[in-house]
Amino acid sequence: MSQSLVGIILGSQSDLEVMQGAAEQLEEFGVPFELIIASAHRNPARVHAWAGSAAAEGKKVIIAAAGKAAHLAGVVAASTPLPVIAVPMRTSDLGGLDSLLSMVQMPTGVPVATVAINGAKNAAILATQILGAGDESWRKVIENYKEKLAE
Amino acid sequence: MSQSLVGIILGSQSDLEVMQGAAEQLEEFGVPFELIIASAHRNPARVHAWAGSAAAEGKKVIIAAAGKAAHLAGVVAASTPLPVIAVPMRTSDLGGLDSLLSMVQMPTGVPVATVAINGAKNAAILATQILGAGDESWRKVIENYKEKLAE
Amino acid sequence: MSQSLVGIILGSQSDLEVMQGAAEQLEEFGVPFELIIASAHRNPARVHAWAGSAAAEGKKVIIAAAGKAAHLAGVVAASTPLPVIAVPMRTSDLGGLDSLLSMVQMPTGVPVATVAINGAKNAAILATQILGAGDESWRKVIENYKEKLAE
Amino acid sequence: MSQSLVGIILGSQSDLEVMQGAAEQLEEFGVPFELIIASAHRNPARVHAWAGSAAAEGKKVIIAAAGKAAHLAGVVAASTPLPVIAVPMRTSDLGGLDSLLSMVQMPTGVPVATVAINGAKNAAILATQILGAGDESWRKVIENYKEKLAE
Amino acid sequence: MSQSLVGIILGSQSDLEVMQGAAEQLEEFGVPFELIIASAHRNPARVHAWAGSAAAEGKKVIIAAAGKAAHLAGVVAASTPLPVIAVPMRTSDLGGLDSLLSMVQMPTGVPVATVAINGAKNAAILATQILGAGDESWRKVIENYKEKLAE
Amino acid sequence: MSQSLVGIILGSQSDLEVMQGAAEQLEEFGVPFELIIASAHRNPARVHAWAGSAAAEGKKVIIAAAGKAAHLAGVVAASTPLPVIAVPMRTSDLGGLDSLLSMVQMPTGVPVATVAINGAKNAAILATQILGAGDESWRKVIENYKEKLAE
Amino acid sequence: MSQSLVGIILGSQSDLEVMQGAAEQLEEFGVPFELIIASAHRNPARVHAWAGSAAAEGKKVIIAAAGKAAHLAGVVAASTPLPVIAVPMRTSDLGGLDSLLSMVQMPTGVPVATVAINGAKNAAILATQILGAGDESWRKVIENYKEKLAE
Amino acid sequence: MSQSLVGIILGSQSDLEVMQGAAEQLEEFGVPFELIIASAHRNPARVHAWAGSAAAEGKKVIIAAAGKAAHLAGVVAASTPLPVIAVPMRTSDLGGLDSLLSMVQMPTGVPVATVAINGAKNAAILATQILGAGDESWRKVIENYKEKLAE
Repeated sequence: MSQSLVGIILGSQSDLEVMQGAAEQLEEFGVPFELIIASAHRNPARVHAWAGSAAAEGKKVIIAAAGKAAHLAGVVAASTPLPVIAVPMRTSDLGGLDSLLSMVQMPTGVPVATVAINGAKNAAILATQILGAGDESWRKVIENYKEKLAE
Repeated sequence: MSQSLVGIILGSQSDLEVMQGAAEQLEEFGVPFELIIASAHRNPARVHAWAGSAAAEGKKVIIAAAGKAAHLAGVVAASTPLPVIAVPMRTSDLGGLDSLLSMVQMPTGVPVATVAINGAKNAAILATQILGAGDESWRKVIENYKEKLAE
Repeated sequence: MSQSLVGIILGSQSDLEVMQGAAEQLEEFGVPFELIIASAHRNPARVHAWAGSAAAEGKKVIIAAAGKAAHLAGVVAASTPLPVIAVPMRTSDLGGLDSLLSMVQMPTGVPVATVAINGAKNAAILATQILGAGDESWRKVIENYKEKLAE
Repeated sequence: MSQSLVGIILGSQSDLEVMQGAAEQLEEFGVPFELIIASAHRNPARVHAWAGSAAAEGKKVIIAAAGKAAHLAGVVAASTPLPVIAVPMRTSDLGGLDSLLSMVQMPTGVPVATVAINGAKNAAILATQILGAGDESWRKVIENYKEKLAE
Repeated sequence: MSQSLVGIILGSQSDLEVMQGAAEQLEEFGVPFELIIASAHRNPARVHAWAGSAAAEGKKVIIAAAGKAAHLAGVVAASTPLPVIAVPMRTSDLGGLDSLLSMVQMPTGVPVATVAINGAKNAAILATQILGAGDESWRKVIENYKEKLAE
Repeated sequence: MSQSLVGIILGSQSDLEVMQGAAEQLEEFGVPFELIIASAHRNPARVHAWAGSAAAEGKKVIIAAAGKAAHLAGVVAASTPLPVIAVPMRTSDLGGLDSLLSMVQMPTGVPVATVAINGAKNAAILATQILGAGDESWRKVIENYKEKLAE
Repeated sequence: MSQSLVGIILGSQSDLEVMQGAAEQLEEFGVPFELIIASAHRNPARVHAWAGSAAAEGKKVIIAAAGKAAHLAGVVAASTPLPVIAVPMRTSDLGGLDSLLSMVQMPTGVPVATVAINGAKNAAILATQILGAGDESWRKVIENYKEKLAE
Repeated sequence: MSQSLVGIILGSQSDLEVMQGAAEQLEEFGVPFELIIASAHRNPARVHAWAGSAAAEGKKVIIAAAGKAAHLAGVVAASTPLPVIAVPMRTSDLGGLDSLLSMVQMPTGVPVATVAINGAKNAAILATQILGAGDESWRKVIENYKEKLAE
């Protein structure tokens, strides 16, 4: 199995069903990835260790998905120089507005790249676009995808 | 100087003006406290070290204030068994609704005790009430305060 | 049966299903508690009597749960020097945003410690953390709980 | 001086500037009223005493104004059979949405009659309309007012 | 059948199921009422005629229920000197926030007395309280109701 | 002076400053218009008379501007077969969200064409586009305008 | 088949079920129309071509329906001098508030005429009113419709 | 001057003051960039031409800033395989919630990477992180920056 280029981290087991969409899209694109479940609040040490070593292990982009007071993407971004894509999970109370604001409104110095609420597939596409910024072969994958979209 | 019972942590220098209100209220109550400024995103290591040693150093309660995607209280709560009071800071864009939801909507297992937007003084009162749950002399301080309020 | 350390008060019978989660968590922790149902609007006298005598009866913390224009926590907090934890109930109209704002935005002088919408279990954990601020044995319970969370 | 028909209660001294508008409108209409400042949270006993005796003293309607987690109108309504008009005060954080939801979303059994954010003058007009429901002379006052409005 | 003291007007047939609650509560209280369905937008002439003659026909209070851009209560209030109670209907898109703001935020000069989203029963209680402001026998009905509530 | 093709109606004198923008844009386009100030709540008869005769007098489009519980556009639309453009006015409390929802969420059967909060100039452009749907010369005016925009 | 006077464009196949309501209403009115499905984001070229030629092909009004970050109406409006009616689609996360704000808040120079969330039928009525601004026969259709509404 | 790696596009001249922050941060990092002002609505052809040729001209990332119904980032993303960073501009009506939702809620297939409201500096940091995903020297720049942040 090839080296993971994308790391996906989920705040909770319950996010897996929606985030399957990201995994499937990356598979379709042929992007090697790794997926773990670890909470920034329940197991911060594991999150820091994983995020802190991601760049050295050869990952190029992180996708972090969480709901409610969704700190995971910010916590990961604090521990890595890699770009971090945030997927706010829909919530049963506030529809995901809480997850969205908790992710997108990051303070100066530590951005995360937020996509739509439950935007699992778009996170995978954006991750591949980011790979494409440094590698023509991934950009080609995106160009092909966009052509198919238009049909 | 006596041992700090309350630790106040601010996400940014810009939170100091509002949070002065918490410091002044604790001083009025005679509660010894410590105040530091450290961002969960810009300096997570310092935050973890401070939060991780707070209980051992004799602190009983933490007050964490931050704005926007306000992760500080949750990050602190992940590193300490102490109760953590969260003060959402007003924001110029969304009035503090972002700070509030980022703090209060914590996932199961890691609560924070959220007070009103910019509720610096109330955070100090709540911290003293928490001290009072374990020590009659602090409860007396609160009882006296409430009597004065009623006048 | 031992003296209740935590008092749980629900604004309505319909809050019981969700708030069961708080009761079960306290039981798991071994914290003795009492639970009553009394509305701040329909039976204010009973609420005041109960809240007013809570400290004298040996309670250390109150948990108040209510929905919509959720005044219960504030009304209780006005009648006791104990720390009051507020649990905003989800509502069918506005998702609980009404309950949340009615609880968390308390005016200066009378704070309540608000947790997430429907955050029953977190209220119980916070209550135990508050007990732990004054009693090492409860802090140990929390430390053990956090260790299990991380697994 | 004649018996007050309307009682105005403000949660805080700071509400007085806006609520002056209600007092002036009642004076213009010739409706005798009484105005007190008393917080439901800081001095609940005074609020209950005042509200509890309002009907016996001959008042016919109550106007209650408060901001943030604005419980005052609900607390008053719990202590009197009189109709209670609620005026949500604008807030610097959330524009008064917190005050509005805290007032209008009252649970079944204890309604309050909510007017617009900062709607001091409208509270006075509504109070006079309520007097007019039982007394033709006040209805005439309203009819004259509406005729002038239309000019 | 006795003269209607309360007029209930619904903006749409679809509001009837919820507003049944108001009719039933008035029946329980023994308050004679009339209920019509007429849209402020689809049949403004009928609404104006009905509202314009309500006072002359002996009605003392109006209850108006509508959803979405809920203008009905305001339109009725523009045509009558009687107090108008507004019931914002829950909506499938925005939960009733649209109905609530469209009703409660009335401009100066023409108030409506807004109750909670879907607050049918509370509208009936408030209407009876308003009758009670001018007639001791209706106030007694409310006092009895409040006593039962407290049990 | 030529026959007015567009009628502008403002709910209040205070809307005039912003809505000047619509008048100026129509003047720039050479579209003859009429502007009146009349409140749907304070003077409904005048609004109905004006709206009811607009089509017969040769007007082709109406622009209605109002704030808060902004019923004016809906009330006008109920009295005319002409297309009605709604301009929600910014409000000091809720930023105009109340005006926007009160206008745009019209029930089935009586639409209004809502533009942005304080979108005075856009209302004038849309009115001219509507004239252009039936008259090539107005469409030319819009085409020229769009060409200039692009420069 | 006669020349289409109204063009309906949907951002996605999933909008068809709701927007059927617009098609049916136009059929009932006898207004010839054309309906296509094309995404502003997935196939911008097709959208521009279609919108750019709409006026020349004899269309008089466009109806554009889309959800979430609903750019379709604005993108179409940028490519045509015709009036564009925007129908914000309800969304499962935010109830359609995202679609509504994405459509209605258009910047100066390029208005769209926004109707209610999921307001398919109202879009058709508004389109016919716009046709009626330039053609008496369509206005008659609307006048007849409004008469039936009132019954 | 070296080849631009980042393209910044602003929807309006008025966005320049805030977005200066992005330009300055890129300059500080030594990242060559190009900045243009072009509206997706007023000059769509220019936007498409610029976005369509960005990849071929050697750009690796786009930053698009706009306010209100902020379609610019989505329109650009539809015309390029490059990753697009969206900066929602604060608005005077709704604080930027409109801009944020219009940008972040992109439909499946065409993501944009949204940062905080007015998050100009963070957009520049994120752009550099994206460059760093494909080029070690830019990652070093970010690593140095993060070290300085922590001090």
